[in-house]
Amino acid sequence: MLHRLRANRPLVHCITNEVVQEFTANVLLAAGASPAMVVGEGEAEYFAGIASALSVNVGTPYEARIETMKKAIRGALAAGKPWVLDPVAAGGIPWRDKVIFELLEMQPTAVRGNASEIRFLAGVGTGGKGVDSLDDSSSAIEAAKTLARKYKTFVVVTGLKDYATDGERVLCAVGGSEMMTLVVGTGCSLSALLAAFLGGAERSLEACIACCDYVNYANDTASTRSSGPGSFHFQYLDALYQIRPEDFRK
Amino acid sequence: MLHRLRANRPLVHCITNEVVQEFTANVLLAAGASPAMVVGEGEAEYFAGIASALSVNVGTPYEARIETMKKAIRGALAAGKPWVLDPVAAGGIPWRDKVIFELLEMQPTAVRGNASEIRFLAGVGTGGKGVDSLDDSSSAIEAAKTLARKYKTFVVVTGLKDYATDGERVLCAVGGSEMMTLVVGTGCSLSALLAAFLGGAERSLEACIACCDYVNYANDTASTRSSGPGSFHFQYLDALYQIRPEDFRK
Amino acid sequence: MLHRLRANRPLVHCITNEVVQEFTANVLLAAGASPAMVVGEGEAEYFAGIASALSVNVGTPYEARIETMKKAIRGALAAGKPWVLDPVAAGGIPWRDKVIFELLEMQPTAVRGNASEIRFLAGVGTGGKGVDSLDDSSSAIEAAKTLARKYKTFVVVTGLKDYATDGERVLCAVGGSEMMTLVVGTGCSLSALLAAFLGGAERSLEACIACCDYVNYANDTASTRSSGPGSFHFQYLDALYQIRPEDFRK
Repeated sequence: MLHRLRANRPLVHCITNEVVQEFTANVLLAAGASPAMVVGEGEAEYFAGIASALSVNVGTPYEARIETMKKAIRGALAAGKPWVLDPVAAGGIPWRDKVIFELLEMQPTAVRGNASEIRFLAGVGTGGKGVDSLDDSSSAIEAAKTLARKYKTFVVVTGLKDYATDGERVLCAVGGSEMMTLVVGTGCSLSALLAAFLGGAERSLEACIACCDYVNYANDTASTRSSGPGSFHFQYLDALYQIRPEDFRK
Repeated sequence: MLHRLRANRPLVHCITNEVVQEFTANVLLAAGASPAMVVGEGEAEYFAGIASALSVNVGTPYEARIETMKKAIRGALAAGKPWVLDPVAAGGIPWRDKVIFELLEMQPTAVRGNASEIRFLAGVGTGGKGVDSLDDSSSAIEAAKTLARKYKTFVVVTGLKDYATDGERVLCAVGGSEMMTLVVGTGCSLSALLAAFLGGAERSLEACIACCDYVNYANDTASTRSSGPGSFHFQYLDALYQIRPEDFRK
Repeated sequence: MLHRLRANRPLVHCITNEVVQEFTANVLLAAGASPAMVVGEGEAEYFAGIASALSVNVGTPYEARIETMKKAIRGALAAGKPWVLDPVAAGGIPWRDKVIFELLEMQPTAVRGNASEIRFLAGVGTGGKGVDSLDDSSSAIEAAKTLARKYKTFVVVTGLKDYATDGERVLCAVGGSEMMTLVVGTGCSLSALLAAFLGGAERSLEACIACCDYVNYANDTASTRSSGPGSFHFQYLDALYQIRPEDFRK
């Protein structure tokens, strides 16, 4: 999957939150994809049609930007391109939850969240505080399957273990470190990377979990080389760049 | 104070400038707080009520965002939560000064600025060029006391020496390096960290100066490990993470 | 030129894209300039008049921000200050192209782009995919000269070789590495640095190519010290800070 992503160098259209735009772009570049943060009212719908995939993240939504997200989603759907929804902090703020459910109705190819977000969206939890998952990811497996079936989408729950499901099958990836939770944007950029895998490698459940495996590998590599979140930040980007497909054979 | 902050892991609502959002979030995470950059028209007031503290920074103000700041401030005040004002470049641009004085009337728990900003707000200076302080911080002690008494707020002046005052007492912290002025957001993130101390440790003058001490310690540590502003940037985040309360006994 | 820039410490007003604001500010600080990202409707025109130079980048344009760009440009022109246009992704999206041509009519002091952008603006190419240049920079020399003559502006084409022209003379700088293309904002921040050289050193073709030389030097230095785009990011900032004017004599 990683080999195919790099060969295709997918152009990933990101409409993400204000906080993590630079980091998300750098994660995509380090992985071998090509980021484009197109947010203009007049160009988002057009551009989503020519990009390889779209990633929508509601970390800092406001009305004008939400309209642009919807335009871009319509552009992606019309062109048959995959799009990923990152429902940041679902369950935490009623106004935002309404936005998230509206986007969820627009046929995302995949939804990526932590356990509390996924549980809330599936109707079996109360949501979390900020972007930190309060629940173990395995606690959200059934919720993820329910959500995937209801919206006919892939659902990816990340945490100490990551799960990807299409509503029937469940694939699991293991890895990751606490350090990742101390750098803003690691989860958000994973969602953008998921769009890169779906648009640049393959539109499949296997591509979803391959993305998680790749991120976990980079995460583990960076953790052992870091003495804090500052050094983790650059080591993580270096690791994403250095990891080669053949490294996974080990 | 640092021990208490980490035990409470305060949720800090930040409405800050476009330039330093990622760095501010990473500073809060490295210190042990939980950042949330909530800026939506429909959620800022609600969220300020459930967060532990609010930090407002006017580094890149524009009308829609200023309205959101005011909503969030009303939410914080209604819930009795502390909020911090960072009056970036006060005295530099008349339009912005008007905005700053409007926010200053909204009962901030603390105001954090450099000497030229604080002197201007107290009516004894002409303000500065950009975000660089043109004055020695000690030159602003009397201005800080005046400002604190007038608005019944803590005032923190940072520079080579830092001063915190409630209008009567003045506490001082020493430390810091020139390198800090070569990385954007060190001052802005200090204001967010001040909100974290006020909301997560204690609402007191002692908490204000503890925040400065902690930042100075991290700054000094990072300076000795850096060969330029790029390496300072990540060393500073590592230092904030590594410093333990017991390190201050030395 | 570098000596003069640092002696004058120019205040560079940047209205740039959402993705690279922090990096652009840090590049300017590391080089010895003073960044100010002033984007308020009520302050952009005023501030452009008091800054040393203005840098406008259309990486993430939307209507409100485009209006602010135009206000700032009018402020810079009225005060006789230089301004630089970075036409990100020109030729890629019709809506954006219209915006770029409107800005191009407002008498930029310099235009900085990659080969495909410059070729498109000169009417001899079809533009590129995202921000990556698809053409060798030397392929755009004639286009750059045409563009410079038509709009009476300096044109700087960057790539593996960089060219600066006023429509008659062409100066060349050599250097740079592939790593630079894997960190978002290296090109965008080069445009801001170009504004710093034009406003803080000299308004000349020589200042344009001096800026490219300086960036290439930092780029080469950082490349040899990096093991990936994460470490390149901070090494690049360190190198910009460490390079002294006398180093160019070697």
